[in-house]
Amino acid sequence: MNIIIDAMGGDHAPEEIVHGAADAAKAMDIKITLVGDSARVEPLCEKYGFPKDKLEIVHADTVLTMEDDPMAVVRSKKDCSMGVGLRLLKESGDAFVSAGNTGALHAGSTLIIRPFKGIHRPAIATVLPFARPVLMLDSGANTNVTPEYLEQWARLGSIYMKNIHGVKNPRVGLLSNGTEEHKGTEIMVQTHKLLKEAEDINFIGNVEGSMITDAPCDVLVTDGFTGNVTLKVIEGMGKLLFGKLKTMYSASAGSKVAYLLMKDQLRGLKKEFDSTEYGGAPLIGLSKPVIKAHGNSNARAIYNAIKQAATFAKTGSIDKFEEVAAMYRAKKEAAADASK
Amino acid sequence: MNIIIDAMGGDHAPEEIVHGAADAAKAMDIKITLVGDSARVEPLCEKYGFPKDKLEIVHADTVLTMEDDPMAVVRSKKDCSMGVGLRLLKESGDAFVSAGNTGALHAGSTLIIRPFKGIHRPAIATVLPFARPVLMLDSGANTNVTPEYLEQWARLGSIYMKNIHGVKNPRVGLLSNGTEEHKGTEIMVQTHKLLKEAEDINFIGNVEGSMITDAPCDVLVTDGFTGNVTLKVIEGMGKLLFGKLKTMYSASAGSKVAYLLMKDQLRGLKKEFDSTEYGGAPLIGLSKPVIKAHGNSNARAIYNAIKQAATFAKTGSIDKFEEVAAMYRAKKEAAADASK
Repeated sequence: MNIIIDAMGGDHAPEEIVHGAADAAKAMDIKITLVGDSARVEPLCEKYGFPKDKLEIVHADTVLTMEDDPMAVVRSKKDCSMGVGLRLLKESGDAFVSAGNTGALHAGSTLIIRPFKGIHRPAIATVLPFARPVLMLDSGANTNVTPEYLEQWARLGSIYMKNIHGVKNPRVGLLSNGTEEHKGTEIMVQTHKLLKEAEDINFIGNVEGSMITDAPCDVLVTDGFTGNVTLKVIEGMGKLLFGKLKTMYSASAGSKVAYLLMKDQLRGLKKEFDSTEYGGAPLIGLSKPVIKAHGNSNARAIYNAIKQAATFAKTGSIDKFEEVAAMYRAKKEAAADASK
Repeated sequence: MNIIIDAMGGDHAPEEIVHGAADAAKAMDIKITLVGDSARVEPLCEKYGFPKDKLEIVHADTVLTMEDDPMAVVRSKKDCSMGVGLRLLKESGDAFVSAGNTGALHAGSTLIIRPFKGIHRPAIATVLPFARPVLMLDSGANTNVTPEYLEQWARLGSIYMKNIHGVKNPRVGLLSNGTEEHKGTEIMVQTHKLLKEAEDINFIGNVEGSMITDAPCDVLVTDGFTGNVTLKVIEGMGKLLFGKLKTMYSASAGSKVAYLLMKDQLRGLKKEFDSTEYGGAPLIGLSKPVIKAHGNSNARAIYNAIKQAATFAKTGSIDKFEEVAAMYRAKKEAAADASK
């Protein structure tokens, strides 16, 4: 098992990336290839005691920033750590983790790793940390969708939740503006029909925005525009409320005492809402596992993302994705034959 | 000023509706027409000391439920309190408030009160209670939109915020999955162009979901599907976090002490997030003011909704909406002439 890591992407790279990777290498039965500026990466590997027998460093000095155009990863900056890393994954790696430019990771993965033939588009999935983890896809990559894209994501997402999160019969929900079948845009109404008819999808119906926090489903299917807005609203609300609590607790001597009495519980609450406990955002539909770790990932978040990548790679999810892809290819051929 | 009130719509009707209306009548220079089952409404008016010189009761005994099809308000149940109330508004009323079936209120208002000629569709707007109030529209009525619908809502929403909330030069934002101009669905990209080009719209650009809580704009424009999901996610997150706080505070003797020390601040925090402090959801684009009060409105929420309705009616917003409508009619005629 060889996990390729982009050592240079993310707000706290390369320090926190190498730190998290070193911890992962110590704790798990994996090899890690760190891709980045070796002049900076090597000393950090020393600092964090990276087990030498589990480490390879591949040099890449072109820097891809958060502001760069996504396509730069396959064009003008193709030798950045992300570009080099994705090509390594394609050749011989088992999984790839990056905390860098999300658009570039999606574009680069789509063009270098490629979705399975038969799968329309890879989605970026986010694990929402509610009562139970909820895999929401697509959370931003695809703003123009068809009902079949969503149907594919429902199947692939279910495989992911079964294999990586151990959910026996993943419930699939469709994000909408009402629970009734007829609610939603035309695309959502058609998608509802497809999901309802699919015998292998455990479809529980439409899910309203206010229901998500109760984790009524294990897989929440939506288009990339709605998914991204939803994800960002959740983040914004969490940040607002925790920010307000912090202000309140600092307000007076009395409230500071209150804080001391509540300290552990508040920390527990914050941790509950920390999605990085589950790792990063998996790209779903590609022929190899790619994880987008949060831009501001610290060592622990990177550790979790690597653990997630390893689990993704070793539980045979990719083989199951290929089975789904094969089913869609067969369906397309049958439709083509029928129309002759 | 005669405000028509649906006395029977809402979870706590007619009691809380009559209570709130009585308080409003005592405090404001308005007359109120309560529409509903007079056998139940009259005794409540006595109970809450409704000033008799400011009161009229119009009987309506057909009951419209939350499960009824929206079109029932103009068909099978047209003599329900909402239907009768909307027809009264059309005839002679100055504004209408209902906490009943939202779909029915939207359908009924559209068919009975009607948008101004030239305005495509009325929107349901929600006042989001952040650092400054943010008027988000459309929050659910229209899932299929064109860029011009959104452009109209931007103009009408700005008038509303100027007149009812006293905002001098309302900033307009477009909800999207990224701040860059090219981000979003095709409709959003086109809408961005329209808003940018409009000289009379103070367009501040795209707003991401995580930015809303900072109130970066006074008017947030979006389609009804995205708006509804956003609104519901905000509600769900608020409920989740306050619920968790409640659980935490009840957990032990120590945390109960902490609660006592923080009681006032927590209550203040909850109130901050209570959108009913601003009233209800105004329908924007109709030729008369209609307010949808929250389904679970208590007396205070109804009081606020009536205050909002009165302000809406008396500040000349409707006249300004008509000016905007006239501009679109002229634009349409000019386009028709040009194509001859």
